[in-house]
This record gives sequence, structure tokens and C-alpha cells, in this order.
Amino acid sequence: MKTILLTGFEPFGGEHSNPSWEAVRRLDGKHLHDGSRIVVALLPCAFGAALDVLGTKIRLFAPDLVVCVGQAGGRADLTIERVAINVDDAPIPDNAGSQPIDAAIVADGPAAYFSTLPLKSIVQALRAKGIPASVSQTAGTYVCNHVFYGLMHLASSRHAIRHAGFVHIPYLPEQAAAHPGAPSMSLNMMVEGLMLLLEISVSVKLDSHISGGSTH
Amino acid sequence: MKTILLTGFEPFGGEHSNPSWEAVRRLDGKHLHDGSRIVVALLPCAFGAALDVLGTKIRLFAPDLVVCVGQAGGRADLTIERVAINVDDAPIPDNAGSQPIDAAIVADGPAAYFSTLPLKSIVQALRAKGIPASVSQTAGTYVCNHVFYGLMHLASSRHAIRHAGFVHIPYLPEQAAAHPGAPSMSLNMMVEGLMLLLEISVSVKLDSHISGGSTH
Amino acid sequence: MKTILLTGFEPFGGEHSNPSWEAVRRLDGKHLHDGSRIVVALLPCAFGAALDVLGTKIRLFAPDLVVCVGQAGGRADLTIERVAINVDDAPIPDNAGSQPIDAAIVADGPAAYFSTLPLKSIVQALRAKGIPASVSQTAGTYVCNHVFYGLMHLASSRHAIRHAGFVHIPYLPEQAAAHPGAPSMSLNMMVEGLMLLLEISVSVKLDSHISGGSTH
Amino acid sequence: MKTILLTGFEPFGGEHSNPSWEAVRRLDGKHLHDGSRIVVALLPCAFGAALDVLGTKIRLFAPDLVVCVGQAGGRADLTIERVAINVDDAPIPDNAGSQPIDAAIVADGPAAYFSTLPLKSIVQALRAKGIPASVSQTAGTYVCNHVFYGLMHLASSRHAIRHAGFVHIPYLPEQAAAHPGAPSMSLNMMVEGLMLLLEISVSVKLDSHISGGSTH
Repeated sequence: MKTILLTGFEPFGGEHSNPSWEAVRRLDGKHLHDGSRIVVALLPCAFGAALDVLGTKIRLFAPDLVVCVGQAGGRADLTIERVAINVDDAPIPDNAGSQPIDAAIVADGPAAYFSTLPLKSIVQALRAKGIPASVSQTAGTYVCNHVFYGLMHLASSRHAIRHAGFVHIPYLPEQAAAHPGAPSMSLNMMVEGLMLLLEISVSVKLDSHISGGSTH
Repeated sequence: MKTILLTGFEPFGGEHSNPSWEAVRRLDGKHLHDGSRIVVALLPCAFGAALDVLGTKIRLFAPDLVVCVGQAGGRADLTIERVAINVDDAPIPDNAGSQPIDAAIVADGPAAYFSTLPLKSIVQALRAKGIPASVSQTAGTYVCNHVFYGLMHLASSRHAIRHAGFVHIPYLPEQAAAHPGAPSMSLNMMVEGLMLLLEISVSVKLDSHISGGSTH
Repeated sequence: MKTILLTGFEPFGGEHSNPSWEAVRRLDGKHLHDGSRIVVALLPCAFGAALDVLGTKIRLFAPDLVVCVGQAGGRADLTIERVAINVDDAPIPDNAGSQPIDAAIVADGPAAYFSTLPLKSIVQALRAKGIPASVSQTAGTYVCNHVFYGLMHLASSRHAIRHAGFVHIPYLPEQAAAHPGAPSMSLNMMVEGLMLLLEISVSVKLDSHISGGSTH
Repeated sequence: MKTILLTGFEPFGGEHSNPSWEAVRRLDGKHLHDGSRIVVALLPCAFGAALDVLGTKIRLFAPDLVVCVGQAGGRADLTIERVAINVDDAPIPDNAGSQPIDAAIVADGPAAYFSTLPLKSIVQALRAKGIPASVSQTAGTYVCNHVFYGLMHLASSRHAIRHAGFVHIPYLPEQAAAHPGAPSMSLNMMVEGLMLLLEISVSVKLDSHISGGSTH
């Protein structure tokens, strides 16, 4: 039986909740159609510490698929990240008070890693189900990108991990209510969307040949 | 027993559904805490015809409260409109092919009418329930503003209508899935939000003294 | 010889300059093609006081045309305002510390006044000259709308004022440099745009029949 | 004497001009304070062909510094790109009709290259001069990113090129006039900004330690 590790973050930036953990924890113990079992983990919103927890969980569960999820306040849809870059450049301190600037995540690591999720097939399937989604060309330079890069670096040497990637999700409506004009998504839709993303990730052999790019 | 008339629109602008009607029709026949009964009506997205239907329904039901609801694709929250202006200026043709430009809605009518809903109390109550909402200073110059102005003009001479106003609502998620990057709101939250708006509208005597304004 | 009164505002909201005054003062004493002479005035960013100064200047200069200009940080183009509404609802205090909420500007005044500038011809002429411009359906509910409404109220009883209106302009580049991501416009283009707006305002007899509306 | 190669693009996407070439060509033959001489080149907006021209010009001029410039319609400021990624994913066909999807730019090339311009010092200097600027975390996946990646790949093996990078610039006002609501920047400011960027690039030894990152 395959194991899928799904992670969310604790709140940051003055928020009282983090939609990534709210959504992810609802999938704990669930099974996919192929029998794969989902395990979940909560990551601290802190450089270094987040990757320590992720590494421990990966060693513990030996997952076949790892998807990390983070909050992107201001985005309106589920954004499947294409690429993680080897730099920490924090516009605000993390939850441990650290604010690295232009620091490599992995010294001598490659400049970037591409997601190994079938991005286009995921976006296509989500939209077909009426769930707003798109490919994103940047995961930023904060803890989300840090975890995404660290995950892909780990996965590059652990061949048991067949697919790995990162998804950004919008504010929950109750968060957006405190940020007038900010878009949001219901928790139910986030949960449904993540479940579908996992199903597509374990079943699609060849990603769809459709554009998910942008001119800039 | 009081009667509340709630209206939604048919689809326009190439959409296959209109969230205003999807939400409104789910409230047909429902009762508020004070016993008021909701009746609903579908308005055509057409200048003139929409007001004809609205007028007929108002004469038929003799409502105490009338709230018209319309789709505002691109907005992220429930926007409670403050003011209706006496002009039709259509950027696209309506569903009957008409595209009036700078035409008065009511010849010799006043330049504008203010909503008589308790805007601030509504926004306050919605946010307190975790439903994104704000006051809007413009309902545009298309069929929504046309209906809003026509409604307020009617209400100004029918004293049985104690409150009247207009609410714009975002795309449904399945619409936003076809407009990458556009915000949306779940149908459940729209329905819950409209119900709460009606409860506040019939119960609040004096609107909250908080700002809902904008610098421009 | 005709006189044109053009006004700008002092800085507000923490800014060190206000593009409206920077642009307007460069047009002081200039003449239009028809010989009209421009006089300018600086308005305080304060409810009441701004209208006091405007009224004094109008009595002093007896202008044929009055155009008030204000800053709209976040907008990208010259926005020609269509309508002023009879309400002050300040999201932030004005420069005198006043923050009115839902207060009428003129007790028993009409709900709104429409601009008497040829909005569509102005936008058309500006765009033809490569100057970004559009019609705006709301001037907000702060000091700008307050001045716009007060101006139109005055003009409604002073028939010597043949046209009157309000224009919002973007940040200057040096302001936008402190608001990452905010749009701006060069001072030269603002000055050129306002001059063209005045030329069109004094020369056009019948506004262009093109849409400047919005669906919401 | 040092040589600086500055490139711009031909128009694409239905535009009649490209601000990158309009700005770049005005700097042809100019000298920096240290005596460096600027040479310019026009690149076709076409995958492959653009890199062919760039490679030819680099061999011809043997520049010490190469900065490629491209149009980012919708962005409001000069955005200094941080990273180029090894993928072409075109949302629209290029000027030669080609629309690659998820294709590597350099087979077996690294996933990404970081700019070797002093990004933070550049942004700091531009803002200090009142020119809106910021660091961008994505150059997209179209011809701009293609050229940026190809440039950095070339530079990685040509040690004579001491610095190389990419800058996106907004629409010109005359373009924005045809895209209502789109931000723009004057040609003069673009030219001044690029000149300042080059001065900083040749003179700064150690980039400023300030954040230019984003949370997502």
C-alpha cells in the first residue's frame, strides 16, 4: 500500500489560522481510489525547523508521494507551483523571528527544482470539477518556497518518492472577511481540490500537453 | 406577516449561470426569525424588461422589503451597494441586444437614490460570521444599476416598501474556473450571507456608525 | 475672455506631495486656444474648509469652467468622474482630524449631481493622444467627492459656470516608488492631459456617443 | 574600455511597439561614468531565433555586462528579474507562430540560473531617484524567460561576461491608453531607469542586504 504525505503550515503573518493545515488535517487517514493512504503533518512556519519536521516525517512514513500545502493570501485559486528556487529572501520574519535575506537553502544545491507533479493534468481536472486552479511560476522566497525546495532536494536523492510538489491555497472566507477585497475559497472546496490533486498525481502517467505558462 | 421580495438575474455576458439566481432561488419560501416570508423572482438581463418584471412582482406581492441581487464578476466579496444613479451606459449589449449610452433611466427622475438598507450593520454582521463583505460606492451603469435605480424610484412612492437595496455577489467557483485568477464564493456562503442580510435588514433600527467609505 | 478655475489638493494620507496640486499649479496663467485664461487654487484636504476655499475662489474669479483635481492612489489613468454623491463617509481622518460618517454634504441637497464635462469626448481625445484615461463611476466618499458635490451644487445655482467636473489622477512616480506595485503617471503627462481636458471641455458642444460605462 | 550589451524586443501580442526596444535604442552609443560604452540589439520575439541573435551579438561585441529588457504589460514598475528557469511554456504563439509547451530551453541545462546583477542595490537606487522598481521572482515562461535563461547559460561559460540579467518594463502610456486600467511608465523614465541600472551594475561590488522577496 502506498503512502501519501500531505503537509500544512501553522498560522503566520498575524493570522489566527492557516487554511493549509485546516484543509490538510481533514484528509488524515483518508484513502485514494487505488488504496493509497494519506498521512498528514503540521509544519512550523520557520526556516530550517519546517524542513527538519518534513525530513523526520519523510523518514518515518517513507511516502511515495509528498505534497506540501501553504497559504497564499491574495491569490484566488489553487495554484500548483511549478518550480522551487534555492534562495531564502524573507519580506517578514518567520514565526521564530528569523528573516534570512538572499541565503541559499542548500549550499551548493542546484538553483532550482521543478515539481514532479503532473501540473497541467491537475489544473485541467480541477477546473473540470468547477474548482478554480492554475499553474504558478513562483512560490515566492519565504518559508513555502523553502519547504518546497527542501522537499524536492530530499526527493532527488530518495527514489522512493515518486512525485513531490507544492500547492498554494487562498485565504479561507473567515480570513478574507478581515482583509476587505481579498479573495477566498471555502474549506470544503480546498479539501475536495486537494483530494482530486492527489488522485490525479497517483494516476496520471503523462502530463497533459496544454499551456500553463505566462508571458511574464 | 411581512413579505420579502428577493430577485436574481438570468445569465449574461456569455456565462451559463448567474450566481444571483442560483443563490436567490434557494431562499424561495423561507421564513425569517420574525416570521417574514421570502418570495423570489427571476429578472431578465435586459434594460426595461427587467424593471417591468420587478414592477409586476412588487404589485403582486406588496413586499415590505425588496433586495435585488446581481453578479459582479471580478469582485471577491458580497458588496452592498450604497447608491443607484440615473443613467444607463452599457459597455456590452444586454440579453435583448440593447446597448443604451448615457440614457436616463427615469426621465426627470433624481440623479440618484441611496439604498435604504442598513449597509454598515449588514457588513458588520456578515464579517462577524466570517463572510467577506463590504460597502460598494458604485453599482455600475448596466442592468444591475438600472434595476437598483428603478427599484428605489418605485420604493420612493410606495411607502409600503420600508427598505430596498441591491447586493452584488462574486462568481461561483465553477464560473471562476473558466476565468483564471478571478475570485469566487461558494453558493452556500452566498445563500447564508443573503439570509443574514435579510435578517439584519428587518431587525436593525439604526445603522451602525462605522465607515464603509473609500478615498476614491 | 473666459476664466477657467482649476484646483488641486494639498497632500494627505501620509504623502509628501499631491500630484493634483503639482500638476495644476503648472497651468496657472496659461491660456487655451480660445483665449480662456486658467487660474488655479490649492484646496485643503479637509471637509468643509475645502469647500469654503472653493466658494471664495469661485466668487473671486467668476469662472466659466471649474475643474477640480484630486489624487487617486492605486488608479493607473486619468479618471474623469461621472457623478458626485451627497454623502461624506471618511475611511481615514482628513487633514484637520475630522472623520464624518454617512453625513450629508448639503442637507436637503439632491442625492447626486452628474458632471457637466463632456466625459466621453475627453476620454476619447486623451486616448487618441496616447494618454491613459477612462470614465469613473465613483469619486469615493472622502474629501474629493465632497468637493466635487459641493462644486456641482454651487454650479447648479450659478449659471455663469457652464461646465464643472472632477478628475482623479494617479500617483506621481516618486510616490509610487514608495508603494511597490502601485501605478503612476509622469507629471508632464498629467499636465498635458489636464490641458487637453480643458480644451475639449470648452470646445465640445455635444459629448461623444460612446460607452464609458461598466457592468458593475 | 568596457562594453555593455543592452537588448530590446520587437512588438508582440498585437502591440504596435515594444517599450523595451523604444527605451533601449535611445541608449545606443551612450557611455557610463566609468567610460563603458553601450551597444544595443533588437531581438525577435521568437523562441530560438531570439537566442541566435543574442549569441551573435555577444560574440561580436564581447560585452562585460549584458542586460536584456522585455515588456511586461500589466506590471507598474521596472521589475528586476531574479531567476530564469529552464522551460518554455507559451500561453500564446510567438511571432514566428511557435508555441512550445513544457520544453527545456537547454537540454540537460540546470533547472534555473540566478541573475548576476546586484538586484537589491538596483531597486534601492531606482527608488531613491523616484523611479518605481522592484525585484521580480518570475520572468514567466515565454520568450523573455527564454532569452534570460539562454543569456545566463551563455554567461556561465563565458567568463568575460561579468554580470548579466533581465529587466521587465511596463507598457508605454500610448499602449496603456488602449488597455483601460493598465499601468504604464513614460519612455523618459524607462530610459533614465535603465541607465541608472547599468551604472549600479558596473559599480556595485556587494549587493545591498535588504529584502526583495515575497511570501508567495
